[in-house]
Amino acid sequence: MALNTDQSTEIQEQRDQAHTTRRVTAPGIEDHLYTAHQVLDHGFIRVIDYMGDDAAITQAARVSYGKGTKSVQNDQGLIRYLMRHWHSTPFEMCEIKFHIKLPVFVARQWIRHRTANVNEYSARYSILDREFYIPAPEHINAQSVVNNQGRGATLEGEEAARVLEILKTDSSRCYDNYEAMISQDGQQGLARELARMNLPANVYTQWYWKVDLHNLFHFLRLRADSHAQYEIRIYAEKMCEIVADWVPFAYRAFADYRLGGGQLSAPALDCVRRMIRGEDVSQETSGMSKGEWREFQALIDPDTA
Amino acid sequence: MALNTDQSTEIQEQRDQAHTTRRVTAPGIEDHLYTAHQVLDHGFIRVIDYMGDDAAITQAARVSYGKGTKSVQNDQGLIRYLMRHWHSTPFEMCEIKFHIKLPVFVARQWIRHRTANVNEYSARYSILDREFYIPAPEHINAQSVVNNQGRGATLEGEEAARVLEILKTDSSRCYDNYEAMISQDGQQGLARELARMNLPANVYTQWYWKVDLHNLFHFLRLRADSHAQYEIRIYAEKMCEIVADWVPFAYRAFADYRLGGGQLSAPALDCVRRMIRGEDVSQETSGMSKGEWREFQALIDPDTA
Amino acid sequence: MALNTDQSTEIQEQRDQAHTTRRVTAPGIEDHLYTAHQVLDHGFIRVIDYMGDDAAITQAARVSYGKGTKSVQNDQGLIRYLMRHWHSTPFEMCEIKFHIKLPVFVARQWIRHRTANVNEYSARYSILDREFYIPAPEHINAQSVVNNQGRGATLEGEEAARVLEILKTDSSRCYDNYEAMISQDGQQGLARELARMNLPANVYTQWYWKVDLHNLFHFLRLRADSHAQYEIRIYAEKMCEIVADWVPFAYRAFADYRLGGGQLSAPALDCVRRMIRGEDVSQETSGMSKGEWREFQALIDPDTA
Amino acid sequence: MALNTDQSTEIQEQRDQAHTTRRVTAPGIEDHLYTAHQVLDHGFIRVIDYMGDDAAITQAARVSYGKGTKSVQNDQGLIRYLMRHWHSTPFEMCEIKFHIKLPVFVARQWIRHRTANVNEYSARYSILDREFYIPAPEHINAQSVVNNQGRGATLEGEEAARVLEILKTDSSRCYDNYEAMISQDGQQGLARELARMNLPANVYTQWYWKVDLHNLFHFLRLRADSHAQYEIRIYAEKMCEIVADWVPFAYRAFADYRLGGGQLSAPALDCVRRMIRGEDVSQETSGMSKGEWREFQALIDPDTA
Repeated sequence: MALNTDQSTEIQEQRDQAHTTRRVTAPGIEDHLYTAHQVLDHGFIRVIDYMGDDAAITQAARVSYGKGTKSVQNDQGLIRYLMRHWHSTPFEMCEIKFHIKLPVFVARQWIRHRTANVNEYSARYSILDREFYIPAPEHINAQSVVNNQGRGATLEGEEAARVLEILKTDSSRCYDNYEAMISQDGQQGLARELARMNLPANVYTQWYWKVDLHNLFHFLRLRADSHAQYEIRIYAEKMCEIVADWVPFAYRAFADYRLGGGQLSAPALDCVRRMIRGEDVSQETSGMSKGEWREFQALIDPDTA
Repeated sequence: MALNTDQSTEIQEQRDQAHTTRRVTAPGIEDHLYTAHQVLDHGFIRVIDYMGDDAAITQAARVSYGKGTKSVQNDQGLIRYLMRHWHSTPFEMCEIKFHIKLPVFVARQWIRHRTANVNEYSARYSILDREFYIPAPEHINAQSVVNNQGRGATLEGEEAARVLEILKTDSSRCYDNYEAMISQDGQQGLARELARMNLPANVYTQWYWKVDLHNLFHFLRLRADSHAQYEIRIYAEKMCEIVADWVPFAYRAFADYRLGGGQLSAPALDCVRRMIRGEDVSQETSGMSKGEWREFQALIDPDTA
Repeated sequence: MALNTDQSTEIQEQRDQAHTTRRVTAPGIEDHLYTAHQVLDHGFIRVIDYMGDDAAITQAARVSYGKGTKSVQNDQGLIRYLMRHWHSTPFEMCEIKFHIKLPVFVARQWIRHRTANVNEYSARYSILDREFYIPAPEHINAQSVVNNQGRGATLEGEEAARVLEILKTDSSRCYDNYEAMISQDGQQGLARELARMNLPANVYTQWYWKVDLHNLFHFLRLRADSHAQYEIRIYAEKMCEIVADWVPFAYRAFADYRLGGGQLSAPALDCVRRMIRGEDVSQETSGMSKGEWREFQALIDPDTA
Repeated sequence: MALNTDQSTEIQEQRDQAHTTRRVTAPGIEDHLYTAHQVLDHGFIRVIDYMGDDAAITQAARVSYGKGTKSVQNDQGLIRYLMRHWHSTPFEMCEIKFHIKLPVFVARQWIRHRTANVNEYSARYSILDREFYIPAPEHINAQSVVNNQGRGATLEGEEAARVLEILKTDSSRCYDNYEAMISQDGQQGLARELARMNLPANVYTQWYWKVDLHNLFHFLRLRADSHAQYEIRIYAEKMCEIVADWVPFAYRAFADYRLGGGQLSAPALDCVRRMIRGEDVSQETSGMSKGEWREFQALIDPDTA
């Protein structure tokens, strides 16, 4: 992450602001504001603004005239109840805005979540920086042999070295040529909207991304999951830390009911009931396919999975 | 609007809050926070929270590290440019949350705007108050004879009196019976989720409604329009005042390009060009139907319309 | 449900249509097309149009050039995999359009699901019919004493009779007065957009409602649930039957993984693992609150719940 | 566009289907079904499915029991009225599904329109084809000197040749290296989800894209506009042709009121009124900024612009 002096100064100036407001303020997230939390080699996540706190969830759920809080215990209980029973609208009453720098191939996964507001840096209008994601050696993995859309063991030795060399060299050459094409030195200079097509998907872009808490939780459930690609998961995990500081009750409920929980199908639920009663259940007697049974086993007995 | 003592106290307590925050603060809207602005006989609009200001629009449009503002003139120009060219995402970077009390038939129109977050008071869970919208005499109008979905002249005399009498009497009787059915005094008491069906559409409900500025402008364009039903327009107009205090540059651009402007069809644009060149254009030579021509005339020559 | 002769004729004419098309056709739903399936006393659900079938889900998941189907078993397996792993976009590739007649208080719950397209009968423009939902005696229940937003035992005897009498009398009188106010016989006639406010929430309205299969499943999961209010659940259950005829593989996966399954929180999952290993777990040793434990017990041992 | 034999066969098999259905059928679009309309050098647009026709718009607007059509003239008039007055929901009642092959940098612009359903070819799961967009010589332009996000004159001579050479060489080398990295010949083979980051933004991807007519019109208004980048505009223009065949009345209204019309701001409307009355208006007396005046001139007097 290379913040230049101007950028660091601008961020510091924003952090030095102290406004007085009647709005509810969430102390736990104030300290995050504007700071660039590094993610990957050149990326970052910055909290730019937020609306609401844990109490804003219960306030809306109760359609209150005042703050909407009762006892702390009562509020936490209500938030857990709302999460458990899939109430979504009270969580939509909190909103957060991020400034994120991320590789284009990560941005392409990210944007599939449509229920957010986005302003991306325009490569039609501006020139992209010479910044490319080059994975750390421990994150260069082979294609998985069990999961068609995952990765397996870390590559080592010459093969890993070749991969790194290719990624660096191709990025660098493509960027040199990007610069050469748009240069107006002794030539007209190619339009930026065309030149950008020569840049590979590990080039960094950046955007403002604003989302409500319900939809953020949905994003985090899918992207902080162990099956998500590492390069987006690392952003999601950093966001989990930030959200835990912002709305601790809501985050705890989310961790318990979504991130850390499990979904049982009707046949799986039937098997659980039988197993608790002491019955010996096998895949053959489970009513599940082999794939479903394997995932079920991993859920109820993670040690043997 | 009948705020009881508890409600007034709760609102005053919120208004007396003074928090320190690093977030951008929009001074013009701070004074509105929590205050109940009366609308219709028992309704209100209260601003509960907001995110962003005019500068947050340009900050996102520029994907800035800092505040994203340049000169005031430059910022205003950019906001007008974005509005003129139908850029929507920068305006989505501002968000506002309202607490609104409104008649059910207004709520039913309102909710057709789907791109907002809503938590409504639950009449399954709670008991509705005895509050009904009874129009002021000057807002009791006849069915329009020119517009099938509008209203015409104000009703007067006995007819107006009969209408008022009916609305008051029926509301009152329906509410008496609602109370009688749910009462647990000497009987089991009907479930609230059933009893509510006896209440007419002028009963008041309330909700928390949160929306981004782009979608709020879309709502206001349709509902602050002269063709909107008076009972929702009066809410929209109050919101226009609030938004003008919150984001004055954006509101001015909205007023110039949306509220106060006009849309020309291809044939209408052709007519305008011919008329400016001095040509005499009639409906027959305009390429427009009679209805389109009438609306066109009202646009370019409102005095004769 | 009172279809008049004109309506029945129009429906029959549509059913008699036989068009030739290159589009995929789902035989199981063709027979439903246009037929009005009665729901409640005057309501109905009619399928007006649909797009796609089970194969359209796998076709999109595979981004196929052709039909996208492989063996039937393979397709069903893929659909179950997609459902199990919360893939939403392939299910969005199927779309269905309904014409629904329903009481206003049901419509108000329904419309909270925002991800659908709606055209409702306009009471600003048209006159509503004299049709009100009057519950059958077995669906007139007391307020629940355990669940603040549910209903308990069926009311009986005089109390039930009083409720029925009130609902009928108030509906009838309100409608008489609605008609009297809009009448142009010897008076100007009140604008329809105003007169409608005198009608209670059990009056019937109707709308066209179009939704994709993913969002329909989300609606059905919440509204075909035993905790949903009976008057909306009965619509959801009829839709379940229709969807099962339309996309049988997808519906079966939905029934197994959503409707009939269960969600375990992290502490609940931990308890299940311990119980399967033979450990005796009580609320005190579960890490769950009393409310959570009660719901957990109901899930794993429904007989004792 | 290189359809291989399998793909052509699959498409032909689908085109040879003839199903009987009760659903409304739009004859004008049936002939488009499944055919791959070439766009750019390797891209295409294929219509996969559709729901509704012009009559489906009026049927929903009228909430009809039957087809919802009256006279052809009446229907067309209603559709024009709905378009003129910004009614959106009746147009949402038609739906269309495309299979589209397009360069990644075009896909990145496209996906900013969030109100559509998308299934994209997964480069985590599958291997991308060796197909890159190389602009035709007449579409290689210099950066515009008047519009920061547009292109100016066509590049010629050596500069154009250099650009072409770079785009071809870099694409080719990056793809060679992509293949080398994922190869499992004598090595483990890099995970596909990582290897894809080496591919430049002119590589082709493909997706299923499903959208309702209202949101499609919104997309087309922005992307078939002369200010849109050529590489996305050419897709939008092909879609315009298809939509004109599908729903001719709605398309004509769209062309008249959106594509071919113009938006006047409040000051611009005031100027038009004054100019029609014969007044001489200049930028100084217009109340507009220079930029607004220039755009206004271009609208009312395109010949001198």
